[in-house]
Amino acid sequence: MRYKVVLAYDGTNYCGWQVQPNGISIQHVVEDVISSIQKVETHIEASGRTDAKVHAKGQVFHFDGHVNMTCEQWLKAMNAKLPEDMLVKEVTEVEDSFHSRFDAKWKNYDYYINLGEYDPFERNHVLQLCRPLDLDKMRECAKCFIGSHDFTAFNANSLQERPNQVRNIYDLWIEERGQIIVLHFYGEGFLRYMVRMITQTLIEVGKGRLSIEKVQELLQQAKKHSAPYNASAVGLYLVKVGYEDYKEE
Amino acid sequence: MRYKVVLAYDGTNYCGWQVQPNGISIQHVVEDVISSIQKVETHIEASGRTDAKVHAKGQVFHFDGHVNMTCEQWLKAMNAKLPEDMLVKEVTEVEDSFHSRFDAKWKNYDYYINLGEYDPFERNHVLQLCRPLDLDKMRECAKCFIGSHDFTAFNANSLQERPNQVRNIYDLWIEERGQIIVLHFYGEGFLRYMVRMITQTLIEVGKGRLSIEKVQELLQQAKKHSAPYNASAVGLYLVKVGYEDYKEE
Repeated sequence: MRYKVVLAYDGTNYCGWQVQPNGISIQHVVEDVISSIQKVETHIEASGRTDAKVHAKGQVFHFDGHVNMTCEQWLKAMNAKLPEDMLVKEVTEVEDSFHSRFDAKWKNYDYYINLGEYDPFERNHVLQLCRPLDLDKMRECAKCFIGSHDFTAFNANSLQERPNQVRNIYDLWIEERGQIIVLHFYGEGFLRYMVRMITQTLIEVGKGRLSIEKVQELLQQAKKHSAPYNASAVGLYLVKVGYEDYKEE
Repeated sequence: MRYKVVLAYDGTNYCGWQVQPNGISIQHVVEDVISSIQKVETHIEASGRTDAKVHAKGQVFHFDGHVNMTCEQWLKAMNAKLPEDMLVKEVTEVEDSFHSRFDAKWKNYDYYINLGEYDPFERNHVLQLCRPLDLDKMRECAKCFIGSHDFTAFNANSLQERPNQVRNIYDLWIEERGQIIVLHFYGEGFLRYMVRMITQTLIEVGKGRLSIEKVQELLQQAKKHSAPYNASAVGLYLVKVGYEDYKEE
């Protein structure tokens, strides 16, 4: 029986999703918990990796169950054993052919930035920029990224490993919540550091250090290493992975 | 020159305000920073201790400055050297006779409780109770504590160290913020664990496990160890220390 699991985690204390030689990975912790529950060495497969310190409110992974347990029992058993910085939110039975990565149709990432006074309580969850930004300019610039573009300049995957770096961003908008702004990214998929690089690019535009014309040029030229902007992992959340066609939320 | 400082800190990684043989205390970290700035071993005196893992949005301490620096320079110098889980919010010059503890007229503590789904991001900042409570009953019970009472049953100071355990609670009310409730305590001063013991007492009332009559009885009898309730440090914040007469906020 194959299960689809929706998982939230605070990425602060982890080296990221993927098992690494140094540091504790989220994948490793979750695999240990599931393996110990069903007493079978179990591999889990996620919708995609998240980097060190990146958070998730709705990461999705799948695994194959080898014991007679309901979804509700799996959810409770996992939450009883997982550390307090992780929470299984949903467990559902899926077809044996379901694959959390290959079947994903879209993803939503959010990036949180505090423009106000430094907040020591949110230092691991919200980028503490603590200065004003020109949101009008950022919103105008955000539109450049919406749609299907070659994001070669705005990600860290090499062209050898990913020859096709065209991706479709369905929506990218900026919400104001008091002194906090939230950048909402919806797209069919995101390359390595793509959300963080676009975020830092928008921050530079908001600071007045980078023009919208220059951003358009970088996007059109599509050259590796031409956009040297990468926001911290701290404010980034994988919010949702969609398995149906994208519809505006 | 004596300075009054308003300090915020995330108490998660500290053994509390006071210097302890084991663990890192907030006092120790701040004294080190000030001593290194003015190159004189400096003692700081707080409005009161906070326990391990308790947070502050507005702790107040004072110290004596021995260098020619403005308040603004002190603020910047301290924030440059303090760890990222602390923030100096205000520095003001005060009379040489000012004392952060003896001159304090009232304090405001807030206690945060999540009644909804477990939130892994807020595990160190909000008590994760994750069950409904009868807020009407809690609000009714909260009224018992308002005013001047002998809080012998509701604190952990011995009668040897504090023979007079009568304190005046000016206000105690419960705010709803979605799935989070916030208990706001205003009083002339609070004994050890007093806020946490009243909070857990109110939680027990909200769960239906303790009657308001029983709480009134415990308060009137004023016997040590009669109220075995003590909420976790996690949701507790020292919000404000007042140096003027209390006025309803």
